[in-house]
Amino acid sequence: MDGSAIVVCDGLFGSLNGKTAHGLVRGTRRYRILAVVDAPTAGRDAGEVVDGRPRGIPVYASIAEALERLPEKPAFCIVGVATAGGRLTPGLRELAREAIGRGMSLVSGLHEFFSDDDDLASEAARRGVAIRDVRRTAPSPQLHFWSGAISSVGAPRIAVLGTDCALGKRTTARLLLEACRSAAMRAELVFTGQTGWMQGEPFGFLLDAVPNDFVSGELEHAVVSCWEARRPEVIFLEGQSALRNPSGPCGSELLLSAGARGVVLQHAPGRRFFEGLEELGATIPPVEEEIALVRTYGARTLAVALNGEGLDEPSLRAERDRLERRLGIPVVLPLEDGVEALVPVVRSFLAGEKETVPR
Amino acid sequence: MDGSAIVVCDGLFGSLNGKTAHGLVRGTRRYRILAVVDAPTAGRDAGEVVDGRPRGIPVYASIAEALERLPEKPAFCIVGVATAGGRLTPGLRELAREAIGRGMSLVSGLHEFFSDDDDLASEAARRGVAIRDVRRTAPSPQLHFWSGAISSVGAPRIAVLGTDCALGKRTTARLLLEACRSAAMRAELVFTGQTGWMQGEPFGFLLDAVPNDFVSGELEHAVVSCWEARRPEVIFLEGQSALRNPSGPCGSELLLSAGARGVVLQHAPGRRFFEGLEELGATIPPVEEEIALVRTYGARTLAVALNGEGLDEPSLRAERDRLERRLGIPVVLPLEDGVEALVPVVRSFLAGEKETVPR
Repeated sequence: MDGSAIVVCDGLFGSLNGKTAHGLVRGTRRYRILAVVDAPTAGRDAGEVVDGRPRGIPVYASIAEALERLPEKPAFCIVGVATAGGRLTPGLRELAREAIGRGMSLVSGLHEFFSDDDDLASEAARRGVAIRDVRRTAPSPQLHFWSGAISSVGAPRIAVLGTDCALGKRTTARLLLEACRSAAMRAELVFTGQTGWMQGEPFGFLLDAVPNDFVSGELEHAVVSCWEARRPEVIFLEGQSALRNPSGPCGSELLLSAGARGVVLQHAPGRRFFEGLEELGATIPPVEEEIALVRTYGARTLAVALNGEGLDEPSLRAERDRLERRLGIPVVLPLEDGVEALVPVVRSFLAGEKETVPR
Repeated sequence: MDGSAIVVCDGLFGSLNGKTAHGLVRGTRRYRILAVVDAPTAGRDAGEVVDGRPRGIPVYASIAEALERLPEKPAFCIVGVATAGGRLTPGLRELAREAIGRGMSLVSGLHEFFSDDDDLASEAARRGVAIRDVRRTAPSPQLHFWSGAISSVGAPRIAVLGTDCALGKRTTARLLLEACRSAAMRAELVFTGQTGWMQGEPFGFLLDAVPNDFVSGELEHAVVSCWEARRPEVIFLEGQSALRNPSGPCGSELLLSAGARGVVLQHAPGRRFFEGLEELGATIPPVEEEIALVRTYGARTLAVALNGEGLDEPSLRAERDRLERRLGIPVVLPLEDGVEALVPVVRSFLAGEKETVPR
C-alpha cells in the first residue's frame, strides 16, 4: 500500500475516458481512495456513478473542496482519465499544478509525462513530493526480449480479449480472478495497462508504453515471474484494444507469445463502431468472426462476456440468450450477474489442458 | 546524401544477422558505402557475399585495414548487424570505440544505444563526431496517434508481409518498387525498419522502436505524408516479423491501420522453424494458412515471393511450381528472377481497387 489518494477526472468521470478512475473505485491494493474530483458528478457516491453500487467514496467538484471536506490530507493525486493519445490537456496540467502546490505526489498513466514539464518538476522538488509517470518505460537494456521461457510455465493462460477498447476487459479479468479464488482455485492475473499497476497488481507491465519489439518479451517475463512466484493453477491475462481495432490492433501477443490457449471474449452488442472511430464508420466485426480469428491463432474462446452499453436490461438479456444459442458457448453478464458461472468453464478448460500434450 | 561510410559486421556479415549490411550493400541513397569490415569474409567483394553479384565494395578484416587501403577516409561507421534483442555486444562496443577514436561518426540501429555509453559519448564529443542511434524515438508528444487520416490516401497500399523474420521482405519491397518504377508507374515505399532509414528512404518510421500505442499512428502518418508529397499510384509497405511469430507478432497494423488491401507474401519453403526459435521447435505455419489469416484481416494475397534458403535451385524451382499450382496465384523468385512478373499483378490489383467502393 503506497498511501491515501484522490482521483482527479477533469469532468470525464462519467464517460468511457474515466476508465482508470472506474478501476480505482472498483478496487486497488496500492492506494486507499478517499475521493474522486469531478465537477459534473460532484455530490454523488463514486461507486454509484461507476456501476450503481455505492462504495462510500464521495465525488467533489474541486481539489479545494476535497481537501476542505476530507478528514485527512491525501498523500497522492491520481490522474483518473485516459485522454486521446494519452496527451496532457490544459485542464489536467492545471489540476496537477494545484495538487503538487498543495503537497500531494502526482501519479499519471498518460503517455505525455508530467515530469517532463519543467515548471511542474521544479515545483514538485520544492514541495518535496514526487511525480510518478507510470507509463515511463525502463531503458531497453532493462527490458526483456522474448526467449521462449514461456514453455516452462506450468499454468495454462486464459486471455481476456475484447472486440473493442474500453468495454470492460480489465474488470472482467478481475472478476474472474476473484470468482476463481473464492472457489478455492489458485488463480493469478497478469495486468497489461496502467490501471492494473495503479490497482497494485503484482505481475504485469504497461503493454502500450513499451517499445514494440519488447512487448512479447515483457509479457513473457511477467507471466514467467508470476508462475515462479506463485505456482498458480491458472493465469488470466488482461487484454488490450482488440485484434482488429484499426487504431491499434492488439491481442495476438497474448495468444502467441504468452501462449494463452483459452480466451474469454468481452463484447458490447449495443456498440456498432469502434470506440472513438464512430465518425469514420469503422464497424466492429461480428463476434463469430472474432472467435474464428482467435482459433486461427491457436486458442479457443471459452465464453463471451457482455457489456450492456446502449441496451436496457431486457434487451441485453435477450441478446445474451440469442448469442448463447448461436455460439454454443456460455455468454455471461459480468456486471449484472457476476462471473461465477464461468468457474466450471475454467475448471473444465484446465482439465482439458492437462490432457493435452504441450505444443 | 549524408556522406561516405564503412559498415562494420563483427564477423556476422555472412549470416542472417548481417541483414542491415546486406541492405546497405544492395543500395542506399543516404551513404556512399566504401567498404564492409568483417574478418570471416575479408578479401571478397561484399556484393558477391550478399547475393553472388560483385558490386565493387571490398570487405576488409579490420577498421585499421580499411583506413589503410581505402583511397579516402569514411565520414561514417555504420553498425551493420542485428543482434539478439538489439543488444550491444562487447565486440561492437570495441569497434565503435575504434571508429570514433579514428574520427568517424557512428550510426547504429540497435535497441541499446551507443550514445548512452558515457565513455563513447565523451570521446565522440572530444573528437567532434556524432553518434546516431537511429532507433531512439522522439518523445511521445512528437509521435502520432492513429486518427483515421489514412482514409484520405488515394493510393492503394500493398504490404510486403512474410511468414518469418529475416527472409527478404525489405529486399522484395525494394525490388517491387524499382520494377514498378521501371515500368513507368508512380510507386513509393514506406519503410518500417532501421535499414530503410539507413538506405535513405524518405517515408517511414522505425516500427519496433516506437512505444506500442503509437505504432499505428506513426504508420498512418508515414503513409499519409508519402501520399501528400508524391501522389503515387501505389504505396508499398515494408512488413516486419510475421503475423504469427511468437517472439513478436506483427503485420496486422499494416492491414488494418494502413489499410493495405493487397499483400505480397515472402516465404522460405526450406525453412521449417521461426528464425532463432529452432531449439523451441516453433514451426512456421503453412503458407495457405497465412493467406487465410491475411484474408481475415480484409486483405488479399496477390502473390508469393520465395527465399531459396536451404534449397538448391532445382528444388526451389520445383517448389515454386508446386506452390503456384496449389495456391492459384503467382509465385516468384525475387533474387533469382527479379519481380518484373509482378508488375502486371500490381496493375491489375490497382485497376480492381479503382472499381471498389472504399471501405
